[in-house]
Order: sequence, then C-alpha cells, then structure tokens
Amino acid sequence: MKTILSIGSVALDTIETPHGSVKDLPGGSATHFSISASFFSKVNIVGVVGEDFPEEVMNFLTSRKVDVEGIDIVKGGKTFRWSGYYDNNMAIAHTLDTQLNVFENFNPKIPEKYKDSKLMFLGNIDPVLQLNLIKSAGPKDLICSDTMNYWISLKNQELLEVVKASDIMILNDQEARELTNKNNILKAARAVMELGPIAVVIKRGENGATIFFKDGKYFSSSAYLFEDVVDPTGAGDSFAGGFLGYLSTVTEINNKNLKKAVIYGNIMGSFNVEGFGYSRIAKLTKEDIEKRYEEMKDISLY
Amino acid sequence: MKTILSIGSVALDTIETPHGSVKDLPGGSATHFSISASFFSKVNIVGVVGEDFPEEVMNFLTSRKVDVEGIDIVKGGKTFRWSGYYDNNMAIAHTLDTQLNVFENFNPKIPEKYKDSKLMFLGNIDPVLQLNLIKSAGPKDLICSDTMNYWISLKNQELLEVVKASDIMILNDQEARELTNKNNILKAARAVMELGPIAVVIKRGENGATIFFKDGKYFSSSAYLFEDVVDPTGAGDSFAGGFLGYLSTVTEINNKNLKKAVIYGNIMGSFNVEGFGYSRIAKLTKEDIEKRYEEMKDISLY
Repeated sequence: MKTILSIGSVALDTIETPHGSVKDLPGGSATHFSISASFFSKVNIVGVVGEDFPEEVMNFLTSRKVDVEGIDIVKGGKTFRWSGYYDNNMAIAHTLDTQLNVFENFNPKIPEKYKDSKLMFLGNIDPVLQLNLIKSAGPKDLICSDTMNYWISLKNQELLEVVKASDIMILNDQEARELTNKNNILKAARAVMELGPIAVVIKRGENGATIFFKDGKYFSSSAYLFEDVVDPTGAGDSFAGGFLGYLSTVTEINNKNLKKAVIYGNIMGSFNVEGFGYSRIAKLTKEDIEKRYEEMKDISLY
Repeated sequence: MKTILSIGSVALDTIETPHGSVKDLPGGSATHFSISASFFSKVNIVGVVGEDFPEEVMNFLTSRKVDVEGIDIVKGGKTFRWSGYYDNNMAIAHTLDTQLNVFENFNPKIPEKYKDSKLMFLGNIDPVLQLNLIKSAGPKDLICSDTMNYWISLKNQELLEVVKASDIMILNDQEARELTNKNNILKAARAVMELGPIAVVIKRGENGATIFFKDGKYFSSSAYLFEDVVDPTGAGDSFAGGFLGYLSTVTEINNKNLKKAVIYGNIMGSFNVEGFGYSRIAKLTKEDIEKRYEEMKDISLY
C-alpha cells in the first residue's frame, strides 16, 4: 500500500439540485479525492482554506487517515466558494457564483514529509501550479492529473506541459475533445497519449468511463445507474480517488490493474452522487465498496 | 435456429459523410436489419420498393438466405429515398430530403408462408402499421419493435399500443426519454417496461448499449470504437439484426442470453459503420463476427 499525495481545491459549495439545496458544504477536488482514496490508502492532502473552514471537516479527514498538515489555513482569509445548480439534466453543472478568496493566491508547497508519497493526484488547478508541483514533488511512481475546459482555452501551452509530465490524464469526453481538437474519442485519447501519458481515462457520466492504453487497446466500464442522482458535485474527483486508491494497493501498473482501477473509480463516483457533497461517501465501509464491486459484475460481465 | 420476420423500410439512400458521398445506396431499416440478422438465421422480409430498385440487391438478399417474396415491387413506382449528411459529429444525421414515393402507401401484408416465423422485428414505421402487423403476424415467441422521435410526437397513443404489444423495445436514449417524459435513463427504461415489454434496449452510439430487465437489473455493453466511422446509417438496424439474430439461435430468452444478444448487436452495429450502407457487412464471414466477439471481451471484461 503506497501513500497518495492529493493536491487541489478545498472549497465550500452551495448547491441546488432537484433533490434540495445546501449551503457552504465542504467540497473541492482535493477533499472529494482524498476522502474517496482514503478507503484504499493513506492520503496526504495539500490545499488552502480560510479561517472559516469548519474544524470538524479537518477532524473528519484526520479520522480517515488523511494527513491535513499540508492544508494551509490563511489567517483572516475566507475559503474558496462555489455556488451552482443542476436542473433535470444532472450531467451539467450551472455555475451561479465563484469566490476564489484564499484560493486566488494558492501557491501550494509540498511538506517535506509528503515527498515520499509514491502516487500523486493533481486536481483541476492552474496548470502553472500543477507543473511546479510535479517538479517539486520528488520522485513518483505515478502522476495522475485532471483539468477543465477553462484551462484548456486559457493556458493551453502550460497545460500541454502538464500532460507531457503526467503518467495518466483523467478527463471527461468533452475536455479530451477540446484539448486535442479531435471529435473522435479514440483519436482524442491517442493524441493525449502521444504527448506522454501511458494511459488516458475518459469519464462519461451516466455512460461510464473508458481507459485507453498506450498499446492501442482500451477498456470501458459501465456506470452504476440510479433512479435518483442526488448531487453529482465531486463525482469526478471521487472517481479519481477510487482509481488511484486502487492503484496504490497493487504492485504493478499494468492494463489488468488499470482496468480494475477504473471499476473502483466508477464505484466511488457512484457513491458520491447518492448524497450531497461527500455525505454518502463519509459513511461508507469497505464492505459497501466490495458489495458494489459484486453488483458491477452483474452489470458488466457476460 | 428460428426464422425471423423483418418488416420496415427498404430505401435508396444518398449520404454524405466526412469520408465521401454516395448516391442511391440500398438501405432502409428492413434491409439493414435483414442482412445483419442473416448471419445468424433465416430471415423473411416484408417491404415495398419501386421498379427502380436494383435487382442485384434482391439477388444479394436471396444469396444471404433472406426470403424477398414479401417485398412488394410496385409497377411504375419509385423507391423511398432518403438523403442526408453527417458532419464531424457522426452521432447526428442531418436530413436533406425525404421522398416517400411507394412507401407513402405502404400497407404491409405478411405472406402466409412467413407466419410461422418465430421472431419478429418491426422497424421504424407508422405505429398504426406496426400494430396491424402484430395482430396479423400469427403467434410469435418474441416481438421486438423500434420507433423514432417523429412517431413519439405524432402518433403517441398508437405508439404506446405498440409498446404494450411488444416483448422488447429497442430505442436510443433520446427516444426513451421523449417517449416517457423521464430524463433519468433508468426511470425511462422502467417506465417503458411498465407498459408491457420484458426488456428495453437503449442504444447509446459510441457509448454502447444497455439492456434493462423486468427484474430491475440491467447490463451495459461497451461500444467497439473506431478512429474513423465511415457511415453510421443503418447501424441501429444492424444492431437489432445482431440482437435478434443471436436470440434466434438460443432455446431460452433469459437475462444471460439477452446480455449476449446485446454484445452481438453491438458487434453488428460496429461492422455497419465501417463502410457506406451495408458494404462492410455484405463482406462479413462468421469468423469475422467471432473474432470481434473475442475483441469485445478485451474491451469489456476484467
């Protein structure tokens, strides 16, 4: 079992979905990722919050063996806030408001004691920061990066450097198409790998996820479906947490293990959407995860 | 091995895709379905064409053990023509022109000798005709129907009667949502089954296909991906041909066999898009199909 270093946003989200609304719910890419990955491994988190960030969240993270020493608490500062809503099409988040607050000057430093973490997840932050982090993180077995359309258009060159320096990119289908200017998803994935990564994971929401390998092969994992998706916020990061979490438990990064990692990614993403924020995932047991793994067989195997 | 009765359009398609353009290419739902299903079973086809329909297509169908006696050749009539194009998003067909011609007064009669066909596929035609056909076709082991958004809005009540009388509906995701007014795909599929069918197949293009069962379970089969999709026209009907074709070879309609049928549906749909019209499928061998079945394992199993 290898330790995972997780770097990204820590936020307070105000969310409205057809199932209700919540205010200042703890979220952010690093938070969702870390809690999800903590079911597989020890996690070190790097992020920034204001003094208004609830101490009980820090305590909860610690209780899940997530080391929060790398979360910088800015005196007098306010935590990054995102506010948005989903209508009946739960695949699309509509942003109402973004207050960067302390996140605006986020300049993540990796504590010395985190540097021997063997796996690293770079959540969706400025590619300039992502690149600096890759350079300063120390040797890694596996670097896995995420991004979003905003950076694809705004800092394209810097982002391409991040892709080059990453072992695995996790993108949604639209991001993969925009990043490569290729509409065909197989061409898009292969174009990403030509830049460097050994694999690309394409998240497709209710259509599951596909991982593309350097040897030209690929593997698709179906989504676990629900009649009621409560809140999709953070599902992509929970996916990444399950994906990298599983990889932290194997001795070799090969196609077989990467396939299984995608299944665990889908599983953790599926739990994520069952409740607001990380409320459902917070209550999970290892048995719940293995039970859903068995259910996934019924959905996928023949 | 049971005989399959296939009823739907027989057409001449003029198609433009990024890979080229073709004029008056033989197509139509019954044609694509029948050729695809013919790799599994004997097929009886019912349709209508004009005198301009190429005799070599009739000969080709006959060579594939498709009985064409049920294709009515209207003296002095012209065959149904569809013209459309695809841009870089190959998932969406843009219609340029539709000339119904002899198809406008299509009033399909099932030849007596076809009535002992055990399986029936009703391609996307007027639900009033579909319903008459179900009533006059004689006892069937399995009735499988398709439709399109046009009928969902124009003849909704009649279509609901067709759904009620069908054992399996094959729809794409958008059709399922429109038919049931439910955006959630699991709710939509279950709403369709509440009307009668024992299963619903949802086609999702490059995202594969999912079959939903009456017992609440479901199964997703991943799509076989291509860097270059040449022509998607007819892929849904070729899918149905593979699906029902496989079911014609099994002794029992159960979840296990229905799952495998979806795999074969995906396989035949994948061959369809590799060439214009049915050009690729026409050249297939049983070995090609089994080879792709093995490749599908690599994509789907873990």
